[in-house]
Amino acid sequence: MKNMTLVDFANQVASNSPVPGGGSIAAVCGTLSAALTEMVANLTIGKKKYMQVEEHMKEIIQEACNLRNKLIDDIQKDSDSYNKVITSYKMPKDTDEEKVIRQKNIQESLKNAALVPLSVAESSYQVLPLVEEVIEKGNSNAVTDGLVACMMARTSVLSALLNVKINLISINDIDFVNNLNGKVKELEIRTMEYEKKILEKSPF
Amino acid sequence: MKNMTLVDFANQVASNSPVPGGGSIAAVCGTLSAALTEMVANLTIGKKKYMQVEEHMKEIIQEACNLRNKLIDDIQKDSDSYNKVITSYKMPKDTDEEKVIRQKNIQESLKNAALVPLSVAESSYQVLPLVEEVIEKGNSNAVTDGLVACMMARTSVLSALLNVKINLISINDIDFVNNLNGKVKELEIRTMEYEKKILEKSPF
Repeated sequence: MKNMTLVDFANQVASNSPVPGGGSIAAVCGTLSAALTEMVANLTIGKKKYMQVEEHMKEIIQEACNLRNKLIDDIQKDSDSYNKVITSYKMPKDTDEEKVIRQKNIQESLKNAALVPLSVAESSYQVLPLVEEVIEKGNSNAVTDGLVACMMARTSVLSALLNVKINLISINDIDFVNNLNGKVKELEIRTMEYEKKILEKSPF
Repeated sequence: MKNMTLVDFANQVASNSPVPGGGSIAAVCGTLSAALTEMVANLTIGKKKYMQVEEHMKEIIQEACNLRNKLIDDIQKDSDSYNKVITSYKMPKDTDEEKVIRQKNIQESLKNAALVPLSVAESSYQVLPLVEEVIEKGNSNAVTDGLVACMMARTSVLSALLNVKINLISINDIDFVNNLNGKVKELEIRTMEYEKKILEKSPF
């Protein structure tokens, strides 16, 4: 999916196919947030005024680039996980044995379809401290790019978490559901607070 | 730019070139918000349960599609407007005449570089009432996609407005600045309130 053009990807999103949907979009959003963070760090390197933070910026670029490469693959991964849920619901259910196998497959595919966006949310959340660093210590001419990266990371996390929650509804494993629900709530609160904290640094 | 692949576009964002930057990303975000809104409407059409809203959904698709086609072209337009600012700053300033011409060019290019993201913000803001409609009346199975579209529209508007504000700083035409500052503030407040209102409809 990452090899689609922007225009083809947008067409595909708009179509009456449920994938790529909100989960994949969350991953796109996280990808671009990490990319913008790298850009601000890159625009800081090689400038006399920022010589002291040059090594730090290089570390940030490495971390943000790793997250970007992971998140861009999650675009496809999220759509695949959704497709697996659809496929398991379509499995035969004529005999008792078939019913058991189908249920097992549905439950497994739903768990995976919850874990993939949770991982997207966790990765995009990890972009936030990098964003904070480039806004505080990076090239001040690119501060708006840092602030955009911050809002993109927030929207990526919250969007991905919505996709976790919708899948949790149909999962029977109470321990799994409780565990993930706890993670979702914590990440949601932390993300909203973190975005607020970063946006308060805005000179605008 | 819309014909770049997602991976190439993200690489370009991450690079040490200031374009595409936050302004173009705002346009991408708005594009995907409109596309997701279309998807929810498309997933509503042809379903017995939603027969009564079918015509309404078709109208929403048309409006969202127009906004999407406009916003996807704004990705390039924003980067072009920034490049024009850079070019005007590089104009010769050896003679008094050159200085005057250069200043005129700088001011004109800055105005354009403020108007382009303002237009992005206005278009993405127009996605919000469409999002509200598909969440309220569209296929409830796709409600999370609607909520993601809402957050994408909000992030697009606020990101684009940051790019308006940073350009206003260097514009000398007080009337122009005051006029745009007023629009920015109003749109900012309206967008934050609208997002809050829509997210309160979330069943999660």
